[in-house]
Amino acid sequence: MKKFVVHQILNHALITHPEQKIVSDGKTFTYREFYSRVLKLANCLKAKGIKKGTVVGVLDVNTHRFLEMHYACSMLGAVLHTINFRLAPEQMVYSMVHAGDEWIFVSDIFVQAVKPLFGKFPNWVLMSDNTDQPLPEAKQAFNFEKLVEEGEEKELPEADEIQEDDVFSIFYTTGTTGSPKGIQYEHRTMLTGAIQLFHHMALHKYGARLSNRDVFMPLIPFFHIHAWGTAFFPIYLGAKLVLPGAADAAGQLALIQKENVSWMNMVPTQLQMLLEQEGFGNIKVLTGGSPFASGIAQRAAKAGVEFSLIYGGSDQLGTAISVVPEDVEPDTDEALEWRRVGMRPFPLVEISIRDKEGNEVPHDGKTLGSVWVRSPWLPKGYYKDPETTNKHFINGWFRTGDLGYFHKNHAIYVADREGDAIKSGGEWIPTGVLEALLSEHDAVQQVAVIPFHDEQWGQRPLAVIKSKAEVSEKELSDFLLAKVPEGKLAKFWIPDRYVFVDEIPLTSAGKLNKKVLKEEYSKL
Amino acid sequence: MKKFVVHQILNHALITHPEQKIVSDGKTFTYREFYSRVLKLANCLKAKGIKKGTVVGVLDVNTHRFLEMHYACSMLGAVLHTINFRLAPEQMVYSMVHAGDEWIFVSDIFVQAVKPLFGKFPNWVLMSDNTDQPLPEAKQAFNFEKLVEEGEEKELPEADEIQEDDVFSIFYTTGTTGSPKGIQYEHRTMLTGAIQLFHHMALHKYGARLSNRDVFMPLIPFFHIHAWGTAFFPIYLGAKLVLPGAADAAGQLALIQKENVSWMNMVPTQLQMLLEQEGFGNIKVLTGGSPFASGIAQRAAKAGVEFSLIYGGSDQLGTAISVVPEDVEPDTDEALEWRRVGMRPFPLVEISIRDKEGNEVPHDGKTLGSVWVRSPWLPKGYYKDPETTNKHFINGWFRTGDLGYFHKNHAIYVADREGDAIKSGGEWIPTGVLEALLSEHDAVQQVAVIPFHDEQWGQRPLAVIKSKAEVSEKELSDFLLAKVPEGKLAKFWIPDRYVFVDEIPLTSAGKLNKKVLKEEYSKL
Repeated sequence: MKKFVVHQILNHALITHPEQKIVSDGKTFTYREFYSRVLKLANCLKAKGIKKGTVVGVLDVNTHRFLEMHYACSMLGAVLHTINFRLAPEQMVYSMVHAGDEWIFVSDIFVQAVKPLFGKFPNWVLMSDNTDQPLPEAKQAFNFEKLVEEGEEKELPEADEIQEDDVFSIFYTTGTTGSPKGIQYEHRTMLTGAIQLFHHMALHKYGARLSNRDVFMPLIPFFHIHAWGTAFFPIYLGAKLVLPGAADAAGQLALIQKENVSWMNMVPTQLQMLLEQEGFGNIKVLTGGSPFASGIAQRAAKAGVEFSLIYGGSDQLGTAISVVPEDVEPDTDEALEWRRVGMRPFPLVEISIRDKEGNEVPHDGKTLGSVWVRSPWLPKGYYKDPETTNKHFINGWFRTGDLGYFHKNHAIYVADREGDAIKSGGEWIPTGVLEALLSEHDAVQQVAVIPFHDEQWGQRPLAVIKSKAEVSEKELSDFLLAKVPEGKLAKFWIPDRYVFVDEIPLTSAGKLNKKVLKEEYSKL
Repeated sequence: MKKFVVHQILNHALITHPEQKIVSDGKTFTYREFYSRVLKLANCLKAKGIKKGTVVGVLDVNTHRFLEMHYACSMLGAVLHTINFRLAPEQMVYSMVHAGDEWIFVSDIFVQAVKPLFGKFPNWVLMSDNTDQPLPEAKQAFNFEKLVEEGEEKELPEADEIQEDDVFSIFYTTGTTGSPKGIQYEHRTMLTGAIQLFHHMALHKYGARLSNRDVFMPLIPFFHIHAWGTAFFPIYLGAKLVLPGAADAAGQLALIQKENVSWMNMVPTQLQMLLEQEGFGNIKVLTGGSPFASGIAQRAAKAGVEFSLIYGGSDQLGTAISVVPEDVEPDTDEALEWRRVGMRPFPLVEISIRDKEGNEVPHDGKTLGSVWVRSPWLPKGYYKDPETTNKHFINGWFRTGDLGYFHKNHAIYVADREGDAIKSGGEWIPTGVLEALLSEHDAVQQVAVIPFHDEQWGQRPLAVIKSKAEVSEKELSDFLLAKVPEGKLAKFWIPDRYVFVDEIPLTSAGKLNKKVLKEEYSKL
């Protein structure tokens, strides 16, 4: 009996919505055309030797070809490695070797960058419309479009044999420390995790709620958990999907307007960039990945951006989503604040926030602890890394490495990464909260708070500021001090030092790169 | 690792919505109080010997006690047999013996009716608020409320050990022929089936769409697939749940008004009865279980009843739901008609309609065939009945025994039961379609179409009519004849004979009892 298998949703969409559209790279495909390309691709790849268990790396932005690879790999039982192109080059190669990539599919955007790797992997496919473009100089190399042309358009008998517990994909976390860690997901865990997420967005009344009539455009790249599930759920719904490729903020805006995009996902940095574009707004946005400054939340609300925040990650999938509690009036500042900081776990997900001794902290809206998660869609652990697995996956629970607290109504607020929080006189100072508060100041464009060594307190906070107008240390301190009586922070959280910079370095996931900042400024 | 286990959703609701309410029998419980009662009940039942695998029969209307039994059994790993009280007495006993019931929980409503069975089963629990009421004269007998009082309020260690593939419940189909057939569902199949159904109602723009802010009242009894999943999904959502007990249509209406009920489920017959109540309307209704007459659909629409139809059954769970296609204007007659007859399969569900040779019929909006279903939440078969199992569960597919056709857009219309359709001159006449058309006539209150033997054609249709105004055979024939050019039926479908009766007999599920009608009228 078939259960939760990825290509099953495409088979279904073909039957129920054959004329629905996928837009990518200036081209439009109906689901029927898309399905036909996937079938031909899969048959051709099969003829070339790709089979159940073959690991296939793909290096591309969000395009129809990358999406086709999702479904072709699913039908063949091949393992899709969505290569993270924002990793440092040596980390990217590490991930390709560690995953065991036998084939590399590379977009023409990236082909020059990976030239040094042509000899390292045997089989290459160039993803390009231009079939005359020179192929990678490797043992075997093909043009993607020629493969599609070559393939027979027929059902694959092995597609019917794929089991829901077969591995579907592997990808690597973009952690700020150590080597990237690989995570494998089976068909069922990936699909169930993705389905839960978007079903929940349909159930709640406010925020990035969606329906089968939305037009979807993911800015989250496929290598981040398959664009947070967007490789699956528009097709599951039979909805229109727009893939932005390498479009910049202006190009994205043009696509939104041309294709009537109504739902997007993106990290807060991308939202900030889009909000600077004239004409962006009146759209639903799912965001997450880092604490979300209330300044951006307010600007988004003003522009008619109906946003929700998701909490989760590559090693746990979706865990919680911001929800306006049922007794809070929807269009108020309070509701806006809940959507920014009140994450309610999905049903079937358990969240536990624990102190150092492993005891649950009080649910009092302030006591910080380590966030632990248990859910039906947790992965088995890190790929070929039992040591790190044993540190994080314990008795069916996943230790997220995040620091958070419970609101009194049991929603959670994720305040910081454990490695980022500052221990001052034995007490935690969550840098994420400080960053969110400082970003509300008109003169602050971006801010990262890191620790510096202090004789008396152990650590004290230092704020690295990218400003957009003149501002003094004293003005920023006073700004924070004024928020102490409002209960937004404790007085001892206020940074002792401020550094003004031109650019704040970011990680491959678009988060503040505190590792680099600490190396540079912690010894000040 | 815990996966999809029924009591897990109650644990979650307790954490996220402890103050949410369950209303039943004139009492109101918060989720916290409800959870506390479930824990005490489960601990007490454990002390009395109920454990993993014990089969527990419950005979009750929709009350909080029956709902408590769902979650207590789940925590203990006991198998909940939801006894169908609308079966004929000997069939009911058959089901209790066949399921292997070791305990019988019986509501005070039914206790007199089952007096002859007191000696037949060893352990009895009387579900009554009145703790002084005499107990069944059996080997062991208890009052439910005393058990709850007696039980300790502590977590059950075994609850954490229940696996998603453990059996959760068993119930019996109310088929119109033969002995009732038992179906076991595991925690995962039942929960996944229920979740899919209501998630889909949240995704679509029209009909019985629901959100976490709805107030739910199921009229479908718990013995019908746990009230079509309503034992689970309001709790999953943290929503308010109203249980109607034995309330009649007037009592149901009073509850709707008092408790602000916004979402209900019921069979068409119940909807018809509610529509006759002054003040019923402006509510969302999920209906299904038999072809839905367009006359009722129109009356419902007029009363502001936002309805959807579900297709499914005890032996397949939910399979399809009526959806307004994306290119149809919502508030038109066409949209109304789609909601009545256009059932789109849920994603991950495959439907195949086959001719006698097993080939898929053309998707042309008219060619009838046998409806086959494949889905991730199919049961393994009929309990202790390999012969019937092998007839219906073939190669992962379930032969539903329904007759239907595909619309051109691949939605399905279920026209009839295979056993009910009439074979006239080698061609099928779907009686469900004829009944729906005849019920549109102002003088027709209820109608059943059955075959009679005909020398020339083999079978020909006879209409049994319960009328509410004077009407002649000729008027009814002409009424149908006028619909032939509209494409609503073929001319040869028009019944040759009409019989007028005072009452049409119904089955335990509230469907037309054609078995009885055929015995009485087929030889006319």
